[in-house]
Amino acid sequence: MYAASLAQIEEARARIAPHATVTPVMTCGTLDALMRPEHLLGEALETPDDESVSLFLKCETFQKGGAFKFRGAINAVLSLDAAERERGVVTHSSGNHAGALALAARTVGVPAYIVVPHGAPACKLAAIEAYGGKITRCEPTVSARERCAESLRRETGATLVPPYNHGPVICGQGTIGAEFLEQVPDLDAVIVPVSGGGMLAGIATAVKAIKPTCAVLAAEPEGLYGNGADCAWALAAGEMAPATMPPPETVCDGLRAKLGDLTWPIVRDKVDGVLVVTEREVVEAMRLVFERAKLVVEPSGAAGVAAALGPAFRAWNRAAPKWGRTLRARAVGVVLCGGNVDLQALWSTYGLE
Amino acid sequence: MYAASLAQIEEARARIAPHATVTPVMTCGTLDALMRPEHLLGEALETPDDESVSLFLKCETFQKGGAFKFRGAINAVLSLDAAERERGVVTHSSGNHAGALALAARTVGVPAYIVVPHGAPACKLAAIEAYGGKITRCEPTVSARERCAESLRRETGATLVPPYNHGPVICGQGTIGAEFLEQVPDLDAVIVPVSGGGMLAGIATAVKAIKPTCAVLAAEPEGLYGNGADCAWALAAGEMAPATMPPPETVCDGLRAKLGDLTWPIVRDKVDGVLVVTEREVVEAMRLVFERAKLVVEPSGAAGVAAALGPAFRAWNRAAPKWGRTLRARAVGVVLCGGNVDLQALWSTYGLE
Repeated sequence: MYAASLAQIEEARARIAPHATVTPVMTCGTLDALMRPEHLLGEALETPDDESVSLFLKCETFQKGGAFKFRGAINAVLSLDAAERERGVVTHSSGNHAGALALAARTVGVPAYIVVPHGAPACKLAAIEAYGGKITRCEPTVSARERCAESLRRETGATLVPPYNHGPVICGQGTIGAEFLEQVPDLDAVIVPVSGGGMLAGIATAVKAIKPTCAVLAAEPEGLYGNGADCAWALAAGEMAPATMPPPETVCDGLRAKLGDLTWPIVRDKVDGVLVVTEREVVEAMRLVFERAKLVVEPSGAAGVAAALGPAFRAWNRAAPKWGRTLRARAVGVVLCGGNVDLQALWSTYGLE
Repeated sequence: MYAASLAQIEEARARIAPHATVTPVMTCGTLDALMRPEHLLGEALETPDDESVSLFLKCETFQKGGAFKFRGAINAVLSLDAAERERGVVTHSSGNHAGALALAARTVGVPAYIVVPHGAPACKLAAIEAYGGKITRCEPTVSARERCAESLRRETGATLVPPYNHGPVICGQGTIGAEFLEQVPDLDAVIVPVSGGGMLAGIATAVKAIKPTCAVLAAEPEGLYGNGADCAWALAAGEMAPATMPPPETVCDGLRAKLGDLTWPIVRDKVDGVLVVTEREVVEAMRLVFERAKLVVEPSGAAGVAAALGPAFRAWNRAAPKWGRTLRARAVGVVLCGGNVDLQALWSTYGLE
C-alpha cells in the first residue's frame, strides 16, 4: 500500500485548483541545441538525427511562493478538518516547504508554526515572515529540527505537516505529473530533482498510472565530495541508505534531505533511474537557464536541466532496450522546481566556478 | 505621413509570424501588491479600492534572441527583395538590435555585417557571434558608429537596417502592441521603455489605432546626472532634443539613444506621457522582477516596471481628467523588452545600491 495513488492525486488536483497556479511549460532552442550529441563533452561527433531531444521545462518557479512546495502544503492544509485548522500547522524545513506552508496556512486562515534551521537562505526566511509564519530557529541538524517541531506541536496542538514524508504532501506534488502530461501528452520521460522524494514519488505515481511508457528519472546532486546521492545509493542497493550517510555538501540547498519511509517504496517501484549531477553541472545548468531561457531558477531547480544535459542521460537514452523501451526518448520533461534565490547567494554559487 | 501605420503593422505581423515568438503575458501578485498606494513612499495611507492596479508583463525576454528587437529585424530582412538579400544587411548597435539582425539574417540566409562599439556587454557580443554576424568594432560614439556602418555598406552593397529610425523596424516592433491588446483586451494603459523610439512609436501606432482609449506611456531613464531623458525633454518642448544633449549615464545599456526623425513625429502625436525613472528605481525594479516574478530582465527591460511602481505613474493615474480620461487605469501593460544580461554585469548593477 503506497502513500499516494492516482485517485488521491486527482482529488488533490481538484482541491488545490482554486489556489495553486497551473504553471506554464516553456521550451528553449539553446537547450535543445545543447542536447545534440556534438555538444556533449568527450563524445564522438556522430549525430544521428534520431537522437534529437526536445526539453520541456515545467516552470514551478512560477508557482505560488516560487516553488512546487505550495501544491503539497495547500493540499495538506485543505485536508484538515475544522478543529485541526483552528489549531494550525507546524513544520521544520530549510526553506521552500516552510514558506509554502506559511502561505498555504494564510490562504486558508490558519496559524503556521515554522522551525527554520540556522543557515537557511535569507530570501526564504523573509518569505516565511512575509507570509505570516511564526518562526522558531534551531540547529541545522535533522534531529534538532524534529525535536523543536515536536515540542511546538505539543504546545499548540498544531498538526505536523512534514516536508515530504506525508501522504497529502506527496499527492499535492503529484499533481505536477498529471498536469504536465496534459500539457505535453507526448512526453517520453520526465526528470525530477530528488531530495526527500515527495515530488519524485508523487510525480512517479501520477505518470506511471497515466502513461506507463513515460520514464521517470530522478536528478540528484552527488555533492562536493561525491558521496551525497542517497537516492542513487538506495536504488542500487534495493534498500534505503543508512541514517549515518551524510547529507550532500551541495549548492542545491533544497536537495539535502534523504528519502523517507513513505517516499522510498514508491521511488523503488516506480522510478526508472537516477541521474547523478556534479556541483559544476548544476552551476552551469543554472547559468544556461538564466542566460538563455531567461528563467530564474534556484540551484535545486536547475538540477533537472543539469541531469538532462549530462552524459548519464544520454547513456540512459542509448541503452533503450535495457530499460524495456523500444524507442529513445525524444520529448523530455524537466521540472524546474523552484526559483527562490537571492542575488547574493546566486553570486556565491557562481563563485564556485 | 508617419513611418508606420496599423495596416503596415498587421502586414508585418503576418510576415514575421513563421519566425517570431508570440511572447507570453505574465502577472505577479507581489508587483500588484506594490502598486497599492500604501506601498508608495511619501504617500499618505489612503487606499481607495478603486485605485487598485493590475500589471500585465509582456515578456519580450522570451522573444528570439532574448529581446523585442528580433521583430523589427526579421521584418526588415523579410522586406528585402532577392537581389538585396544576396548582398546582405549592415547595422551599428550597442547590442540587442545587432544580435537580432544577425539572427534574423541567419534565419533568412543572408549575410549580416555588424558594427559594435567598444564597451558593449560581453553577452550581447557573444550572441552576435553565435548568430553568425560579421563584427567590426568601433569607438562608442554615434558618429563613429555611423561612419563605420556607411563604409561597410559601400564596400559590400549591403542594406543598412538602422536600429530604430526605419519604417520596417518600427512596424516590426509595433506588432507587440497589436499582440498585447489581443492577449489582454482590457488594457487601459501600456508602458513602453524608450530609447530611439522604434518600439514606442510602433506600439503607439498599433494601440492608438486599435484602442484609442488605451494610454501609451514611455518609460525613460534620466541617468545618473538627471539630464539624459531626451524623450521627456522633446515632449515638453514640442521639438526633438538638440543633438548636443548628452546620452544618459545609465545602467540601461539598451536605452542610450535619442529619438530619430521618423520616430519623433509618432511619439509626439500618439504618446500620452513620459515617466522618467531614476537609476535606483531601475535597479530596484530589476531586483523585484528577478526575485518575485522569477523573470530574467536586463536593466532596460525593467525600466517599464520601475515606471509603473514610481510616483509619476500614480500622479498621472490620479490626474485622469487632465488626460481626457474619465476612469483611472486599472489594467496596465508593461513591456519587459529584453533579458540579455550576463551575471557579471548584473552583479555590477546591483553594486550600485
